[in-house]
Amino acid sequence: MELYFLGTNAGLPTTQRNVTSVALRMLEERRSSWLFDCGEATQHQILHSPLKLSRLEKIFITHMHGDHVFGLPGLLSSRASQEGSPPLTVYGPAGLKAFLEATLNATQSRIDFGLEIVEHSGGVIFEDSQIKVEARALEHRIESYGYRMTEKDRPGSLNMELLQEWGVRPGPEYGKLKNGESITVNGRLITSDQVLGAPKRGRIVTILGDTRPTPGIHPLADGADVLVHEATFTDEFADLAHKYYHSTAVQAAEAAKKAGVGELILTHFSSRYKDQDQLRPLLQEARSVFPNTQLAIEHQTFPIRPSAQEREKE
Amino acid sequence: MELYFLGTNAGLPTTQRNVTSVALRMLEERRSSWLFDCGEATQHQILHSPLKLSRLEKIFITHMHGDHVFGLPGLLSSRASQEGSPPLTVYGPAGLKAFLEATLNATQSRIDFGLEIVEHSGGVIFEDSQIKVEARALEHRIESYGYRMTEKDRPGSLNMELLQEWGVRPGPEYGKLKNGESITVNGRLITSDQVLGAPKRGRIVTILGDTRPTPGIHPLADGADVLVHEATFTDEFADLAHKYYHSTAVQAAEAAKKAGVGELILTHFSSRYKDQDQLRPLLQEARSVFPNTQLAIEHQTFPIRPSAQEREKE
Ligand SMILES: [Zn+2]
Ligand SMILES: [Zn+2]
Repeated sequence: MELYFLGTNAGLPTTQRNVTSVALRMLEERRSSWLFDCGEATQHQILHSPLKLSRLEKIFITHMHGDHVFGLPGLLSSRASQEGSPPLTVYGPAGLKAFLEATLNATQSRIDFGLEIVEHSGGVIFEDSQIKVEARALEHRIESYGYRMTEKDRPGSLNMELLQEWGVRPGPEYGKLKNGESITVNGRLITSDQVLGAPKRGRIVTILGDTRPTPGIHPLADGADVLVHEATFTDEFADLAHKYYHSTAVQAAEAAKKAGVGELILTHFSSRYKDQDQLRPLLQEARSVFPNTQLAIEHQTFPIRPSAQEREKE
Repeated sequence: MELYFLGTNAGLPTTQRNVTSVALRMLEERRSSWLFDCGEATQHQILHSPLKLSRLEKIFITHMHGDHVFGLPGLLSSRASQEGSPPLTVYGPAGLKAFLEATLNATQSRIDFGLEIVEHSGGVIFEDSQIKVEARALEHRIESYGYRMTEKDRPGSLNMELLQEWGVRPGPEYGKLKNGESITVNGRLITSDQVLGAPKRGRIVTILGDTRPTPGIHPLADGADVLVHEATFTDEFADLAHKYYHSTAVQAAEAAKKAGVGELILTHFSSRYKDQDQLRPLLQEARSVFPNTQLAIEHQTFPIRPSAQEREKE
């Protein structure tokens, strides 16, 4: 499980950064990636990345501003032109369906794979045996959501040494023990407790849309291993941030600290910060409040690690 | 007057080429540029070019396929975010208005400059004292147009040596002579005929949308100084070209030859041709029919020169 940033700029593209999109890669876990937001030219960014359009399983839209959705029709059309792409679901606020239908119909774009469009207004919007996705409204000029992905706890590891000593071979017996059942081998009763380690806590990743500081962030970010938070401005432009319903780096760090997250990744930077050098003050300001902070960098991978306190438990 | 190619690939972007867009730069003539088609990430291409969004005066859409229009909403939004952008008109087939209204409304994009959307079905769609634009239907899977830009003849140059000899100073007298009027200086009657060279023939540029070979190309391209023609495939895939309503390089060259154009520029290449090397057969095949052929290259400038026969006349 890792994050791969495809666009980290606010409002419009620059020569240095593209408009917003980030992928949650879960190749090991479910052989697919999820996309969060899809600004114009996200498919172009994907061409220069290890991601594959056909492996995209879900796309979550935080809000219907153009710099977060104008890449959707093109990305879906290009994915459709690749034969054998599996179905894909797009989640987002009201208006998403009309936008996609209008653009795809006007251009007579044929989407051959199963395309499901789910408009939501928060709550648990997806859940299966591996992962749960909750959405919650933030505070932006228009309806904007954050998404909290909670991975289900995974069974602990089997004690292979002990199993070998007791003569249990890999096979269906292993599955039973993992499921908490007991088995009898060579006349010996072996209980799951004896050979199964503690379950591994599932990781939590929270990815927010554009927002001012708002109490709604807390339940989304509470105890998350990684929080992706917009940081459009440095502290000096706190007034602008408020006026345009955005956050400063310090405000993002305060939210991270309050929610007790493991790691904070800042993204969605104003075009006024031209390059990595000019972004450094955002990082410094955030770290003064919440030390374990990173700046999102396009075409870089950020692994989702269980946060420190959990690692100690294991 | 020159062409600047922003996208030359058919259907979808590749790591080498973007989807279709070409600018007609007329900085000397009218201090503006016109855009023909606007595939996704055209605004990104413009960021890496000498073009300026604020200097765009008109955008002509050849047809409503996604790879020719998905860049429009983002480009217009970014242009609107630059203060003081002058008005802009977008021309295109039926469906353009609904597409733009749906995308801009769904994303609450505020377009502060005067945005006029003109849907047409061919004919003279624009004319002023400098230039005339005629559109005509081609033969594609959906309604697709070519555009013929005819520059008006410009007055000839004044004979500066003679004027100096006769003591005529630069000023309103020059304007009168250029307008065909006579003047009297130092008691001498000077007629326009005596000092004004032959008028310069306006240039003709024809830019086609996606099309199969069709008689409609002839009136659009007849005697054009430069013809921009799609060449999706090499001759070997003539069947594919026909099936998908596209042209081969040879078919483009045949149209150029028949219409007696000055120069042919091929564009809109299939993704199967990965780089300049792999495009070379298209050029060779076209040149075997029409020698004065070029391949469109992104971020390169192609000047519009009066074609040879006209230059001889001058
Ligand atoms: Zn934004
Ligand atoms: Zn095309």
